[in-house]
Amino acid sequence: MGDQVKILGISGSPRKANTDLLLEAALKSAETLPGTVIERMDLKSADVKFCIGCFKCFEDNPNDYACQVHRDSMDQIYSKLRECQGLIIATPVYFGQVTGQMKTFMDRTEPLLRYGKGRWKFALKNKVGGAITVGGNRNGGQETSLQAIHHFFLIHDMIIVGTGPDERPGCYLGAAATTHPKRGKIRDAVNEDELGLRAARIIGKRVAEVARWMQGHTNQHEGGT
Amino acid sequence: MGDQVKILGISGSPRKANTDLLLEAALKSAETLPGTVIERMDLKSADVKFCIGCFKCFEDNPNDYACQVHRDSMDQIYSKLRECQGLIIATPVYFGQVTGQMKTFMDRTEPLLRYGKGRWKFALKNKVGGAITVGGNRNGGQETSLQAIHHFFLIHDMIIVGTGPDERPGCYLGAAATTHPKRGKIRDAVNEDELGLRAARIIGKRVAEVARWMQGHTNQHEGGT
Amino acid sequence: MGDQVKILGISGSPRKANTDLLLEAALKSAETLPGTVIERMDLKSADVKFCIGCFKCFEDNPNDYACQVHRDSMDQIYSKLRECQGLIIATPVYFGQVTGQMKTFMDRTEPLLRYGKGRWKFALKNKVGGAITVGGNRNGGQETSLQAIHHFFLIHDMIIVGTGPDERPGCYLGAAATTHPKRGKIRDAVNEDELGLRAARIIGKRVAEVARWMQGHTNQHEGGT
Amino acid sequence: MGDQVKILGISGSPRKANTDLLLEAALKSAETLPGTVIERMDLKSADVKFCIGCFKCFEDNPNDYACQVHRDSMDQIYSKLRECQGLIIATPVYFGQVTGQMKTFMDRTEPLLRYGKGRWKFALKNKVGGAITVGGNRNGGQETSLQAIHHFFLIHDMIIVGTGPDERPGCYLGAAATTHPKRGKIRDAVNEDELGLRAARIIGKRVAEVARWMQGHTNQHEGGT
Repeated sequence: MGDQVKILGISGSPRKANTDLLLEAALKSAETLPGTVIERMDLKSADVKFCIGCFKCFEDNPNDYACQVHRDSMDQIYSKLRECQGLIIATPVYFGQVTGQMKTFMDRTEPLLRYGKGRWKFALKNKVGGAITVGGNRNGGQETSLQAIHHFFLIHDMIIVGTGPDERPGCYLGAAATTHPKRGKIRDAVNEDELGLRAARIIGKRVAEVARWMQGHTNQHEGGT
Repeated sequence: MGDQVKILGISGSPRKANTDLLLEAALKSAETLPGTVIERMDLKSADVKFCIGCFKCFEDNPNDYACQVHRDSMDQIYSKLRECQGLIIATPVYFGQVTGQMKTFMDRTEPLLRYGKGRWKFALKNKVGGAITVGGNRNGGQETSLQAIHHFFLIHDMIIVGTGPDERPGCYLGAAATTHPKRGKIRDAVNEDELGLRAARIIGKRVAEVARWMQGHTNQHEGGT
Repeated sequence: MGDQVKILGISGSPRKANTDLLLEAALKSAETLPGTVIERMDLKSADVKFCIGCFKCFEDNPNDYACQVHRDSMDQIYSKLRECQGLIIATPVYFGQVTGQMKTFMDRTEPLLRYGKGRWKFALKNKVGGAITVGGNRNGGQETSLQAIHHFFLIHDMIIVGTGPDERPGCYLGAAATTHPKRGKIRDAVNEDELGLRAARIIGKRVAEVARWMQGHTNQHEGGT
Repeated sequence: MGDQVKILGISGSPRKANTDLLLEAALKSAETLPGTVIERMDLKSADVKFCIGCFKCFEDNPNDYACQVHRDSMDQIYSKLRECQGLIIATPVYFGQVTGQMKTFMDRTEPLLRYGKGRWKFALKNKVGGAITVGGNRNGGQETSLQAIHHFFLIHDMIIVGTGPDERPGCYLGAAATTHPKRGKIRDAVNEDELGLRAARIIGKRVAEVARWMQGHTNQHEGGT
């Protein structure tokens, strides 16, 4: 029934480290809203192959697979994306952008677009998106990565929220954390970035809040599984 | 009462030309949704002075003015921003960004932020924003300008929508029109840009649609004038 | 001649404050390279009117004015832009972007483009650009503002440099300073941002260094006044 | 010998298609400058594994491998990156950004940064970069992808050039091509995008031209192999 709001968080880090801590903080914060259910997926333990640009996902899918080419972790992820009502993307900043792992995941969501087939079409439409980044430098691409995640959200016809009604969130686009002045190698360095952690909590709650308001306008409700 | 949804469109062009045509297309399209009321403001006929960074709008405002420094067209615009539920920003692209006029307007909305005083505080919170740009070059900064408008929206705790569920909108961030191959000097050149005009119509409708869904979550409803 | 390299710094702040301190640090650092001459202009004490998009600067300029419409501080600034070999743009971040004042200045440089007339054409071509921003929030639009300045540089066929060979510059796009955790209202708050100040020094030196290498490839040397 | 200027082009497309046509046009154009040598690499026929964020490339490299973890195509690519003086990155736009393949390649260039060891350190410093993108939508992320490539260049302390002194290049950031109105699936659709192809030729020539001017300022000349 429509009373539960499901928030899915996806981490694009290759390591069990700072990104995970931020995503966890966001999801825990989302969970404080009554009726919110959270779930988390880590790309580091997933097998996600490169999109080969074959356009087959735009054609018929007789077998109900979203991607006609690869049998990998995406099969499970597609279902989770379809079932959620809010999506939080968290990624370390590598070279001023989301990681290759995160970008590879994004590329593979093509079957969930307007061109998709069967129950996969518009799988993320009208769902609410929020973004989290963490960089080794203070201004090392957090903003540009957040914008890239927003671009991804809008291509999926999602609704974007930022760090919402907070006095001084550090960044308005989403959570922009940093491990600076410690090296990013330190797996829990972000625990000293109070500003970044707080922004992660804000974005988690904000996604859950607006997803609740948007309930009834997404695809789950336009037909069954 | 809450049955009407008001969509405000603001044009940042110094000329009566292509940007206006696009904004008009967007607003007319929004108006096709029952219960939608539209309003349009053109910065070219407004007197908007530069923000001087005095931070007085964060302090007490005994006189109820949003800006304590300038008495100009913004006094009227502040009220209109406060009253709308959806906001469409349209601008020509000048040097890869919104025009100086549009940026100057944006800077002056500081009193409507989280730091604002009295009834001006959070004036745009939870309202829905969509963006329109038109460039003389085909890829002349439309995307980067759309992102700048989104940044503005998120700083105001607004909700961002893109060109929504369309097969091939030309740009997912918002309407990205062009006067190319004609010179931008031609005031109605955009009439030949079917793709850009259609995207403007989509964004207009999308803003109105989501603003309707978000009704009841904005400030007008949290207290009186 | 040709042994001197002239670096021009332009501040887009409406206040005498943090942006000026950063620009000064950058210019002083540039000056440490032998043969470097520096100059600084502040938009706060300039009268720069909005570009009205009339396209007259693309047409004949019988009177040698770069802009055919406005007689204001730009007349002087055009000459300074034409004479420099390196350009440093410094701006506070307002609403995730350069200030309205800075954007208005940028818009007015249209006569110096490829379409310009007489000695104004290509006035910035092959010159070296570096960017400085300072925000009240830690990740409050410094990156997006730096990118907007770069966009401006590339439209002028300039060469872009970043914070160059430094171990941990805080931001690779240019200097990204912050007044956080102090309020931006504090005029010298950036003096506590060692990271931002150091980046400003790096960008100053980097612009001067590469401008020296590029000497002989800019328009001053192709004839004219 | 110092008289030759080597321009390396890298394609991030998973298919032999439009991106390759654009890159080829750029490289051929670069080659028209006397003394220019071109080389091309396609990621589609390379094996490039994800960076695992282990930071080992910042530590000692007793075996002279740039990456201490993966033995794959990057071993060869690292050498080619080190040897070139100009670099052209070409990518299709996937979800508003460079492809997962291209991003994965970028992530793996970490050993060539300021933290690198031995002859790999600063391998791209002071080299000249230009960018090419092609999207299935007209304004489908070409600009944002070009900015991401520029960010990559600046992190490597490179020098960025745009589409240089051209009357109407379509995009100033680099080449922004499109297969629209044809589907991106058509492998040579870009052949009908005269604007995009011309911009690719401009960027090729521009990179070669400025790389020639910058000769003597890159690492090959500071010793090493």
